[in-house]
Amino acid sequence: MSEVYDESLKYFQNHKNEYLEDLCKFVHIPSISADSSYKKDIEKTALWLSDYLKSIGIEKIEIFNTSLFPIVFGEYSKAGPEKPTMLIYGHYDVQPADPIDQWITDPFSPEIKNGQLFARGSSDMKGQLIVSLAAIDSILHTNLLPINIKFLLEGEEEIGSPNIVDFITNHKELLKSDFVLNLDAGMIAPDLPTITYGLRGLAYFELYVYGPEHDLHSGLFGGIVHNPALALCEILTGMKDKEDKILLPGFYDDVIPLSIDERQELARLPLDDDFYKSQTGVNLLVGEKGYSSTERVSARPTLDIHGIYSGYIGIGPKTVIPSYAMAKFSCRLVPRQEPARIYQQLIDYLNQNAPKTIRWEVKQLSSDTPCVIDRNFPPTTRFSTSLEKIWNVKPVYKREGGSIPIVSYMSDILGIQSILSGFALPDDRAHSPNERLNLDLWEKGVKTVINFILSFTEAAD
Amino acid sequence: MSEVYDESLKYFQNHKNEYLEDLCKFVHIPSISADSSYKKDIEKTALWLSDYLKSIGIEKIEIFNTSLFPIVFGEYSKAGPEKPTMLIYGHYDVQPADPIDQWITDPFSPEIKNGQLFARGSSDMKGQLIVSLAAIDSILHTNLLPINIKFLLEGEEEIGSPNIVDFITNHKELLKSDFVLNLDAGMIAPDLPTITYGLRGLAYFELYVYGPEHDLHSGLFGGIVHNPALALCEILTGMKDKEDKILLPGFYDDVIPLSIDERQELARLPLDDDFYKSQTGVNLLVGEKGYSSTERVSARPTLDIHGIYSGYIGIGPKTVIPSYAMAKFSCRLVPRQEPARIYQQLIDYLNQNAPKTIRWEVKQLSSDTPCVIDRNFPPTTRFSTSLEKIWNVKPVYKREGGSIPIVSYMSDILGIQSILSGFALPDDRAHSPNERLNLDLWEKGVKTVINFILSFTEAAD
Repeated sequence: MSEVYDESLKYFQNHKNEYLEDLCKFVHIPSISADSSYKKDIEKTALWLSDYLKSIGIEKIEIFNTSLFPIVFGEYSKAGPEKPTMLIYGHYDVQPADPIDQWITDPFSPEIKNGQLFARGSSDMKGQLIVSLAAIDSILHTNLLPINIKFLLEGEEEIGSPNIVDFITNHKELLKSDFVLNLDAGMIAPDLPTITYGLRGLAYFELYVYGPEHDLHSGLFGGIVHNPALALCEILTGMKDKEDKILLPGFYDDVIPLSIDERQELARLPLDDDFYKSQTGVNLLVGEKGYSSTERVSARPTLDIHGIYSGYIGIGPKTVIPSYAMAKFSCRLVPRQEPARIYQQLIDYLNQNAPKTIRWEVKQLSSDTPCVIDRNFPPTTRFSTSLEKIWNVKPVYKREGGSIPIVSYMSDILGIQSILSGFALPDDRAHSPNERLNLDLWEKGVKTVINFILSFTEAAD
Repeated sequence: MSEVYDESLKYFQNHKNEYLEDLCKFVHIPSISADSSYKKDIEKTALWLSDYLKSIGIEKIEIFNTSLFPIVFGEYSKAGPEKPTMLIYGHYDVQPADPIDQWITDPFSPEIKNGQLFARGSSDMKGQLIVSLAAIDSILHTNLLPINIKFLLEGEEEIGSPNIVDFITNHKELLKSDFVLNLDAGMIAPDLPTITYGLRGLAYFELYVYGPEHDLHSGLFGGIVHNPALALCEILTGMKDKEDKILLPGFYDDVIPLSIDERQELARLPLDDDFYKSQTGVNLLVGEKGYSSTERVSARPTLDIHGIYSGYIGIGPKTVIPSYAMAKFSCRLVPRQEPARIYQQLIDYLNQNAPKTIRWEVKQLSSDTPCVIDRNFPPTTRFSTSLEKIWNVKPVYKREGGSIPIVSYMSDILGIQSILSGFALPDDRAHSPNERLNLDLWEKGVKTVINFILSFTEAAD
């Protein structure tokens, strides 16, 4: 592929400032999905994006309205039906800029300082979208693409993608592809190109513990009723043992053990305990016995309390025995744990362990299925080769502690696996003030995607 | 004392409707201390009360202003310096009438129905004050009193008596007496005249548990940091064992064990588990092993959580690891537990048991010393005899689970023991809508106090 590749790279080198200007226009529109007063800006962004797709040579473009914000679809099919189709997933909405007063620049007036582009959405993920678009444009200026490409670009990712499942379910034929390229997963460090191959799932619960009929005076009734706040503490405390094993009955039954080579791969990640201490500000780490911190945050299931409430929490003393107590907590899941089974295990645990002196009620508030992508999925291996070509370093394979639900949706609804990667850094301050994009990595990203797309020429040759 | 006694009783019988009218005037003024918009009404009540004292023959009357509401002082000293002095403590302020819409009468327009006077303050404790004043007036109409009397009547009891300690401390000579008569403690049942001889103390704490520097994403960091909400649950759960013994080191060291005859006396109280279940609405009672429910709520120390807070407690799921957690809790104390020692025991417990993975901070928010009055304190025995004369039943001796701080203040600052009794019933709905006073008990109360005061004539004879 060397001649076409060189031409494309050269084109990009000569025009990268224009692509950067395009990105600046893109981030200038405040497409904040969490705040409905930005609805017009989101719609403007969707239009801007569909125009941009048209300008680089994508033929079939359609904007689908949802109950909230539009989905932009695009398709390039000149490679011909015998060639593979790549579905590029992305989102064009951004997080709110709050707290505004902590920004050193205007969040929607992009500025470059020390090789970084400061703006809301620069890293998450408008910059990542322009990576793919610049790569495609750079190739198309001199050649055809050796593969077909589809685009699925949504405007609701930062608010949990409320319409994406419906859309995917109703457009299976339209979205039919061979693999997904999702550049929303980032990289570990500037010199470590990264493939994310696993995502934890989630089972989120709200538990209520009810005691006396109404709040009681602790002087008059203290000593004879089981305080529901204490009962809640007992229930929550009982869910873990001293080695941080989770005690819901059967909790680990479905967990696929980590293989030896997977553990070796995870051990290569430059994430030691000092790193985690500096990120969290705690002096002593804890965790499940027998696993490293990296394994604990990404490849092992966990249980965390997110909120507790009971009784009087205002200023000063009030001597009340509360009538109820509430906790929100969730389990992060790993393959093949199922949220519905975890819910049943919680019910079993409560039936066996909750004191008979109180009444409890539990609700499942949300759930995501965990997923692991085969590290040997051919498109992933191919993308890894492209990363290695540009960085001259073997990419690391990591598992992500959080969930990216779209990856499960693509796999479960469409049967398509994803390549999960990207060029954002952990300290790009996504979701925080002073979000920024490292422009050196952004450039390498464009070159990687050019290399990746053109690698199919060779394959086809 | 029979002739004077008969005269006084007869006078009261002939004039009880007038005393009742006086009480109606007294409760008509809305002396609500919790709401500053009633300040003028409180001051009006203090004036009304001082006029009333004057009208029944109390000579030395003074209204002391405080930073909030006035204290009414009065003194009768015609018995002569060799005779004992009784200090009558009472409060003329009342609770707010809310929720107003649940009243069947106007809370400040007293009405008599089925032998009960409905009005805010009728039972707690304007009716109890008129008991003493009617008794004194009934005697003074034909005779001198055989003892000296002082009055300490405050207008801030329902808001925690913020000025009483200062006042007592600065007026030791003025208040010098031999015993206190405090009729704010009520009786257990209409046919069971009651002496309250013990009050629990209180040590109230606020505990903060600090984890990560800021809230963390549970997907990215779940599994390696000790969740402070869970750490708080562990700390609180660890404070009690399965038999409801409190595990603060040395917690029971200072507790005076209940004597056999005290337990027999408490067992006489008509308070069985069904009573406590109906009062609390719980199906199963709990409590410290080896003690009855009555002992548990009144004569044994306890630990109760009043409030807990951590993290996200709004609607829906939010996957945060909170940076801190907070709990408010208190111990009810019995003689001779000291709040300051309990604080130290809590610190010791935390030093020994709080996980090293979190940081904690504890504050003592309030404290009351527990007290037990010698059941053989001669004025108490004498009052008990008067109760028995009127009811033809031996009075019961009970311990109260809550604290009445004024009793400790009198004892600790002035060195004066209190007779704690009264003619209010548990279902008089003090602090609730439709407060009422049982007029039969009120009448018996006046006769009891007449009998009690005149009993000193005999003693002096």
